[in-house]
Amino acid sequence: MSLSQLGDVFRVLSYGESHGPEIGVVIDGVPAGLNVDESQIQQQLNRRRPGQSDLTTSRSEPDRVQITSGVVDGKTIGSPICMRVANTNTRSKDYDQLKEVYRPSHADYTYHMKYGVPTLAGGGRSSARVTAGWVAAGALAEQFLHQLTSIQVLAWVDSIHTIKQPSLPVDPTRAQIDQSPVRCPDTKSSNQMEERIRWAAERGDSLGGTIQLSITNCPPGLGDPVFGKLNAKLAHALHSLNAVKGIEFGGGFDLSTKTGSEVNDEFVQTGNQIGTSTNYSGGIQGGISNGMPITARIAFKPTSSISKAQQTVNQSGEQVELSVNGRHDPCVVPRAVPIVEALSAIVLMDAYLLHRIHQPAS
Amino acid sequence: MSLSQLGDVFRVLSYGESHGPEIGVVIDGVPAGLNVDESQIQQQLNRRRPGQSDLTTSRSEPDRVQITSGVVDGKTIGSPICMRVANTNTRSKDYDQLKEVYRPSHADYTYHMKYGVPTLAGGGRSSARVTAGWVAAGALAEQFLHQLTSIQVLAWVDSIHTIKQPSLPVDPTRAQIDQSPVRCPDTKSSNQMEERIRWAAERGDSLGGTIQLSITNCPPGLGDPVFGKLNAKLAHALHSLNAVKGIEFGGGFDLSTKTGSEVNDEFVQTGNQIGTSTNYSGGIQGGISNGMPITARIAFKPTSSISKAQQTVNQSGEQVELSVNGRHDPCVVPRAVPIVEALSAIVLMDAYLLHRIHQPAS
Amino acid sequence: MSLSQLGDVFRVLSYGESHGPEIGVVIDGVPAGLNVDESQIQQQLNRRRPGQSDLTTSRSEPDRVQITSGVVDGKTIGSPICMRVANTNTRSKDYDQLKEVYRPSHADYTYHMKYGVPTLAGGGRSSARVTAGWVAAGALAEQFLHQLTSIQVLAWVDSIHTIKQPSLPVDPTRAQIDQSPVRCPDTKSSNQMEERIRWAAERGDSLGGTIQLSITNCPPGLGDPVFGKLNAKLAHALHSLNAVKGIEFGGGFDLSTKTGSEVNDEFVQTGNQIGTSTNYSGGIQGGISNGMPITARIAFKPTSSISKAQQTVNQSGEQVELSVNGRHDPCVVPRAVPIVEALSAIVLMDAYLLHRIHQPAS
Amino acid sequence: MSLSQLGDVFRVLSYGESHGPEIGVVIDGVPAGLNVDESQIQQQLNRRRPGQSDLTTSRSEPDRVQITSGVVDGKTIGSPICMRVANTNTRSKDYDQLKEVYRPSHADYTYHMKYGVPTLAGGGRSSARVTAGWVAAGALAEQFLHQLTSIQVLAWVDSIHTIKQPSLPVDPTRAQIDQSPVRCPDTKSSNQMEERIRWAAERGDSLGGTIQLSITNCPPGLGDPVFGKLNAKLAHALHSLNAVKGIEFGGGFDLSTKTGSEVNDEFVQTGNQIGTSTNYSGGIQGGISNGMPITARIAFKPTSSISKAQQTVNQSGEQVELSVNGRHDPCVVPRAVPIVEALSAIVLMDAYLLHRIHQPAS
Repeated sequence: MSLSQLGDVFRVLSYGESHGPEIGVVIDGVPAGLNVDESQIQQQLNRRRPGQSDLTTSRSEPDRVQITSGVVDGKTIGSPICMRVANTNTRSKDYDQLKEVYRPSHADYTYHMKYGVPTLAGGGRSSARVTAGWVAAGALAEQFLHQLTSIQVLAWVDSIHTIKQPSLPVDPTRAQIDQSPVRCPDTKSSNQMEERIRWAAERGDSLGGTIQLSITNCPPGLGDPVFGKLNAKLAHALHSLNAVKGIEFGGGFDLSTKTGSEVNDEFVQTGNQIGTSTNYSGGIQGGISNGMPITARIAFKPTSSISKAQQTVNQSGEQVELSVNGRHDPCVVPRAVPIVEALSAIVLMDAYLLHRIHQPAS
Repeated sequence: MSLSQLGDVFRVLSYGESHGPEIGVVIDGVPAGLNVDESQIQQQLNRRRPGQSDLTTSRSEPDRVQITSGVVDGKTIGSPICMRVANTNTRSKDYDQLKEVYRPSHADYTYHMKYGVPTLAGGGRSSARVTAGWVAAGALAEQFLHQLTSIQVLAWVDSIHTIKQPSLPVDPTRAQIDQSPVRCPDTKSSNQMEERIRWAAERGDSLGGTIQLSITNCPPGLGDPVFGKLNAKLAHALHSLNAVKGIEFGGGFDLSTKTGSEVNDEFVQTGNQIGTSTNYSGGIQGGISNGMPITARIAFKPTSSISKAQQTVNQSGEQVELSVNGRHDPCVVPRAVPIVEALSAIVLMDAYLLHRIHQPAS
Repeated sequence: MSLSQLGDVFRVLSYGESHGPEIGVVIDGVPAGLNVDESQIQQQLNRRRPGQSDLTTSRSEPDRVQITSGVVDGKTIGSPICMRVANTNTRSKDYDQLKEVYRPSHADYTYHMKYGVPTLAGGGRSSARVTAGWVAAGALAEQFLHQLTSIQVLAWVDSIHTIKQPSLPVDPTRAQIDQSPVRCPDTKSSNQMEERIRWAAERGDSLGGTIQLSITNCPPGLGDPVFGKLNAKLAHALHSLNAVKGIEFGGGFDLSTKTGSEVNDEFVQTGNQIGTSTNYSGGIQGGISNGMPITARIAFKPTSSISKAQQTVNQSGEQVELSVNGRHDPCVVPRAVPIVEALSAIVLMDAYLLHRIHQPAS
Repeated sequence: MSLSQLGDVFRVLSYGESHGPEIGVVIDGVPAGLNVDESQIQQQLNRRRPGQSDLTTSRSEPDRVQITSGVVDGKTIGSPICMRVANTNTRSKDYDQLKEVYRPSHADYTYHMKYGVPTLAGGGRSSARVTAGWVAAGALAEQFLHQLTSIQVLAWVDSIHTIKQPSLPVDPTRAQIDQSPVRCPDTKSSNQMEERIRWAAERGDSLGGTIQLSITNCPPGLGDPVFGKLNAKLAHALHSLNAVKGIEFGGGFDLSTKTGSEVNDEFVQTGNQIGTSTNYSGGIQGGISNGMPITARIAFKPTSSISKAQQTVNQSGEQVELSVNGRHDPCVVPRAVPIVEALSAIVLMDAYLLHRIHQPAS
């Protein structure tokens, strides 16, 4: 059952709305005896937090995580871990003007149709605010992966609007990524992206972009065939971000224009290690990790909230002109980097535990 | 739990291997009192069946579906429905030469690493043969959707290798699609694709391509926020196909290069109906259907099995030259059309049933 | 997946430990548009609360419920509902002496074996304290059942130690039950039970007992055949209480000594209504409700915590004498009444929604 | 999700109806590399099979199991295992007279109410016939437990009608149990039970009884706290049998009449092993196995089908006299022994795999 839960055995349940007192997660299926480092969770939350720079929304939230269960003396005890983050700066009055209006490309209309109750001010449950809980859960998942495996999860901005960074010869580090205010490791591209975001902000407009995901040191064998494929689970998790409109693994869409002899990944043995000479498969074959880096690219549409005037209808079907004057990011992609990492870490941790459960008899 | 199961409340469990006696599915969570038309199931199976034309593998399977439970006098009774298709033409001897070899871009290596047992001849569980069961389940799901809703699920080939059909002014019909041996409704493109496939076949090579998915007449409200988004579930389901390497919804990757003012979908009222003037969202907003057509494009890599010589290693890590002489499609995309429809119909049927939670009290 | 979650579509996830800052629940799968009455939740919590009378533990907890998500303006919005209750009176120092000791018939030893970490002071996760969250969830489930159906859930004390009340000609009301400090509606039995509890308390000992469950006005059709039987789900839920050691439905164990002709429930029609002349089946046939009252009896062992001296071993396997000087109920059965109701209401609400999802085509 | 599925990670999906071509199961979540012994599966099926002796129904079914997936060369490959048993002797004409009648204490009425379609002849899905699939799945689970653990699962008849065997000083063996045609290891009781069953059969009547379950050599740590308790899962699984009306663990209902000082299980160390001096807990504390034998007693009501005349109503609500002339067991309890073992083995295998989450990092 999905609904508000991600993961089959390492299960992250998300709760909370943007304009309620808090948002949070409860994680069930946590192995006992693992170390928990709250400061690392906070670090990832800070990377997602609004108000980091003048490129992001001015809504200011300290986003302090509080762990209220499942951890004793800095260690997991096998019980569910509840983590929550208070909403301190809700300002829902800003949204009063919007209560009756279906904002273009927002979830106002679909929520109203689904739940039969009038749209919540400020997006409520559909707000990106709920991702703070995901990031906390993902940070924990990442810590656990580091204790149980060598898996590294890393994401960075690959393009914003029409600016695409040149392909990198080697993966950057998280520190290198964070040196860029837009989280693009290539300095020249980063500068251009920053400029482009300011250009859009001045016009009351917004921009899309893409994020590159790279999961390294993943042992072969994670993921399940048929309906439990690792790429399928990553695709599911990453489409949980409202702005995501596409995902591709390894060679991706480009492979559809190739021949098999061009893009088959031939196996080679180096030392004792079997790998592939190319990685068009993106580290996953038949839904199962093959030990090569797992690579994916995720496409984000431009932020729906723009202050530029738009035409739309209200709940009575009357045409209205709308100019959204809230506190919104002209481009969400840089702040989405830790969220992509978080969702990926949750999926990997879940796949790792599932594989442990069904490990073959020796 | 995924593993071999798709769906939360309309749950399709896939079983069987390519070289065993049969493959099948069991569907749990089927409402009682629905009509079952076996001939329509057979029709979809025939569209997936190998040996349809000289463009596909010469493995010949009649693929007769047999329903062994859950249906009495042509109607569902609320019990699980088991459907199976016999494997009549297994010829596993063809695969003897491959038993020790990790075929490039196949699941041989990852299965061996995961399950600790030597690779199965002919792919076994990872073979596309298992999709016959999915198609049977999806055909049933489609019948049920037609009885309970107005939803229509349709897929067709959009591109093969570098040949992309021009954009269509209006969706084709399934009959129009099937007039083309490659299931591309544009005649000129279809001819070129056919030619291109023969070109690849002659060279012992294979081709990738893309499929367009269009789900129309879907009522607003299907799908759930956060981790149960309709697009996330479709992405999960469609990545279950081994050759799928990417998916995009609505405007897709292209949206990442746009501004919000260019691609926000403004709401308009026409008669009593609220819709959007454009459909960059691809019919889904905040993970929930908005009543507009749900559109997606799915990327397929070229078939991994090619007869052209390739380098790879065997289980002992020794380098070997390989030329796969099985019976394989030079391009799987045309036969994947009914599979894309099947997986989509299953997801939609599941989302439709889940949405019943929120029906008003009677 | 069970672990910490109850329910298939109306899913209650329990979190928190007795000696942490709070315990709570998050409920996913809640229909939108239902009314939420916090005072009724508080009422059921008060019935479970320690310190209600001098017959219960002196641990004093106000047990104020706080709803932090999923409810806006007194109505559900279809999002997960988080409810929590603070732990204000943890006094974990009381448990310092116990940290190394495996208390007889407690979960100290099994938790240590399972999680590999030393036992938590005061029981932690295995404490009956976590049932406060269940009661809050169950109270909500009860409210929802009242809005969506006519189902009534009622439980009362049937026996304590060797005192069993005479069989009742008609179900009591909740008010009648609460007039008794031990929640036994028969006044004479109630007095004797009260006396017996004081007798045990004076001796530093504890008592078992049984609770009668009666679910009335349940429409026929709830529950699923095979592995989703309504009685199986009730049995599962009610065995979640640590002290429960048995459950029987309808005629229960006594039926094992009867002949079919004695205890088959013959169908009769009264007016337009089909029912049975007897109810040995306890309102459930083939796992599905038949419209008659659903009746069950649940057996509770005596509280494990007693101040009377006991022999046991510590974590090093050394024999120690133990006298548990915490604040414990000499008999938990009266306080278990609202918990039995809560768990039953959750199961019924879940069965109702599942039935709604799979309702037959008309 | 329950419905037709048992188990969280070792998942048994049951399908098929009594009067269809076959009944079966598909097991998902099976570790690779385990040995499969078909003859042992057949042995357990033979113990459940109708027509074993003149005490059981004369419906004769060879009940040959066929494995159609997931096993290659006698070993599991990690894929779902489909096992099926053909229905060869359906004789549904016997049931024609019953098609319109609601048989007392059968599922005819509840199925009709639930599914809105007229009752199936012969019970269909609610027939005990479906338990053949469970026994096959349970036999496999037992084999796997033997390969992975030392756990032994054993059940025997404890009472039939008013005849209860004296308590046994030590558990019998399966061979000893099967020497008795009623599966009661005490010879004198067995003879009396046999006689009593003949007495009931002559009268066209039926009898209830109880089964004792004993699971030995279970390591401590299986089961989960809160809503995943091992006893709760056993209770759920065993209530899946239509005739089961009650279950108790360890001291059971009798504990409700005791004091804590009488029935607390004190821990003792013997050699290096910690155990308890008594076992009123029935091997489970706080929902988790403690290493002592897991003991339970299960109550069966008398078979509903009797040839003695009964009053009931038909689908039109008209009163009719009914005498069921099918082929029915006067007492199902002896044939239920392997089913109780099967369901228990499935639960234990599932709990064993789930517990692997908590294994220390390697």
